[in-house]
Amino acid sequence: VSAEGGSSASLAAEPAGGGATYETLLVTTEDKITTIKLNRPAKKNAITTEMYNDIIAALDQAAKDDSVITVITGAGDFYCSGNDLSNFTKIPEGGLQEMAKKGGDLLRSYVKAFIDFPKPLVAVVNGPAVGISVTLMGLFDLVYATDRASEMLLFNKKLSAEQACELGLVSEVFPDSSFQTEVWSRLKKYAQLPPNSLALSKQLIRSMEKQRLHDVNDAEVERLMERWTSDECFQAVMSFFQNKAKL
Amino acid sequence: VSAEGGSSASLAAEPAGGGATYETLLVTTEDKITTIKLNRPAKKNAITTEMYNDIIAALDQAAKDDSVITVITGAGDFYCSGNDLSNFTKIPEGGLQEMAKKGGDLLRSYVKAFIDFPKPLVAVVNGPAVGISVTLMGLFDLVYATDRASEMLLFNKKLSAEQACELGLVSEVFPDSSFQTEVWSRLKKYAQLPPNSLALSKQLIRSMEKQRLHDVNDAEVERLMERWTSDECFQAVMSFFQNKAKL
Amino acid sequence: VSAEGGSSASLAAEPAGGGATYETLLVTTEDKITTIKLNRPAKKNAITTEMYNDIIAALDQAAKDDSVITVITGAGDFYCSGNDLSNFTKIPEGGLQEMAKKGGDLLRSYVKAFIDFPKPLVAVVNGPAVGISVTLMGLFDLVYATDRASEMLLFNKKLSAEQACELGLVSEVFPDSSFQTEVWSRLKKYAQLPPNSLALSKQLIRSMEKQRLHDVNDAEVERLMERWTSDECFQAVMSFFQNKAKL
Repeated sequence: VSAEGGSSASLAAEPAGGGATYETLLVTTEDKITTIKLNRPAKKNAITTEMYNDIIAALDQAAKDDSVITVITGAGDFYCSGNDLSNFTKIPEGGLQEMAKKGGDLLRSYVKAFIDFPKPLVAVVNGPAVGISVTLMGLFDLVYATDRASEMLLFNKKLSAEQACELGLVSEVFPDSSFQTEVWSRLKKYAQLPPNSLALSKQLIRSMEKQRLHDVNDAEVERLMERWTSDECFQAVMSFFQNKAKL
Repeated sequence: VSAEGGSSASLAAEPAGGGATYETLLVTTEDKITTIKLNRPAKKNAITTEMYNDIIAALDQAAKDDSVITVITGAGDFYCSGNDLSNFTKIPEGGLQEMAKKGGDLLRSYVKAFIDFPKPLVAVVNGPAVGISVTLMGLFDLVYATDRASEMLLFNKKLSAEQACELGLVSEVFPDSSFQTEVWSRLKKYAQLPPNSLALSKQLIRSMEKQRLHDVNDAEVERLMERWTSDECFQAVMSFFQNKAKL
Repeated sequence: VSAEGGSSASLAAEPAGGGATYETLLVTTEDKITTIKLNRPAKKNAITTEMYNDIIAALDQAAKDDSVITVITGAGDFYCSGNDLSNFTKIPEGGLQEMAKKGGDLLRSYVKAFIDFPKPLVAVVNGPAVGISVTLMGLFDLVYATDRASEMLLFNKKLSAEQACELGLVSEVFPDSSFQTEVWSRLKKYAQLPPNSLALSKQLIRSMEKQRLHDVNDAEVERLMERWTSDECFQAVMSFFQNKAKL
């Protein structure tokens, strides 16, 4: 096993558990840990429509396999740069309204998959994280971050991993030099704990807030669908692509 | 614009947006920021009955004007020393019971104005804060404090701004020397963000807890009305004024 | 009064307020503070079935006496090492199912006593704390810990007192050398505050979450009763006693 742990190119070619393969993800199971690795490093692991669906499917599979812990991490130097804005440029025949409707349904299902996930879920934040990959951190049971990670949030404010840790969004921050070694050795130890007790503890804790989380998800998606069709959003996306074209 | 930003004596004489003027507040709108400055520095900005009503009115106006962000801050060296205890010495004809009833109604409306405020609301805590000005901090979207600020809370325990920050009551603490410059330059930048998205984000977050906040407000006011007519409260207020008279 | 404050062997022989005496607890009232001291130092204050019942009774009595503040602390070097595993070895005639039922009823009553306790409740964490003594900290109004305290939690992760403080589980950490002096001088000062206001403030705060806390307690006990009869639990308890026998 490499220092990066959990998955490697050679393992990816031979997925454990006879699982599905994905174009944008590397999914492996080793040492009772299923690792879902976002695998678009050239695009800083920005999430396309296809990837949202793939992650939902991979979580669904991880929930059923015989692993004890499930990990999400990123290939390369980024954890995840958030929603791929190219998702906004593929306007379907039904126009903006239809795009907003489809996008809303997808986002609702995506967040739902995290709310309902039954086993301990760990984010191994190997680099910068942006947008939805930051806002979802609250739905993980553990968030381990390298000190190389910086994030963006409400008000466009950048948070360091240490600041996110003080806010309770990140569980613990490690020096980048020992990040992979340290994190995977812990996770392997945790994966030896009684699996039913771990899963049932998580479900017990989650059950007390699950309805509220689903309500929040619904309210947020409804608001986003309205926002996506607003002038403010249109201007912001246009301005993003214009600035990009200038580079 | 002065380094203190947001308002100055000359601006106060000429309020923007044709707004109302208040004897105890300076309210100005500049750079899409409406600033409500508590203006009784000689009394450390203690809040009188008149000021409670004025702040409610100023918030109501700020909610409707075309500013993006609303700021509350204090004139002089104090942010706010809390409830002006002289409010307790003006016993109306109906006696203590009537005073408690009127005080309770006013406090309920005051807190309600913060719970329902629809735009991003920022506390610029320019100096020490006491009592209700501390307990209300949880209803702001951002609380920026100078490191010169010290507070008082439950059990009469003094908190430093740094401690309040660790507790999540204060968002960020700045050195007093650069406090005004740093804070206002940030707020001006935030005020350039898409205004509807900011307001709608806040409303979305708040909507999930609004009913509960109103319930807490009602329960707290009901209990306070009973407490205000108790012997313990009478003794504490008497003792405050006796100690003051001895100085 | 000794530096350990609140209680001493001589006082224990002559309990204040004509209160009951307990084999496993020292309960004293002094300076308006009722102190419940876990008194099995040779067993690191592990909680037996008898002690659960005694603590419930002592809390019930403290709620009614004329003290202002109630303190729970440990005799000797440990605060509390959690549930005494010997509780699991006394299988009643009804077998495992009956033991789980009785254990569940006891635990539910125990946690209920903390949820419903009407006065300010303070944990004086004089040394390491494990298991249920850590998970209950959230139900105290103040948790003062010596820096000598280390704890164990979810995932078997050890927390230092400082880490528990950053997580909000501990209110403040003191150097062990001045811990007893510092903590008791504060508590004596707090005990001089208006007693009704203190109790009513606590009840007001608690009232907003009391129903939810009872729901969580019920759900957790139900799940534990199922877990206690599982193979995983049986293996873990067996392994504990086997390892102990080897020492």
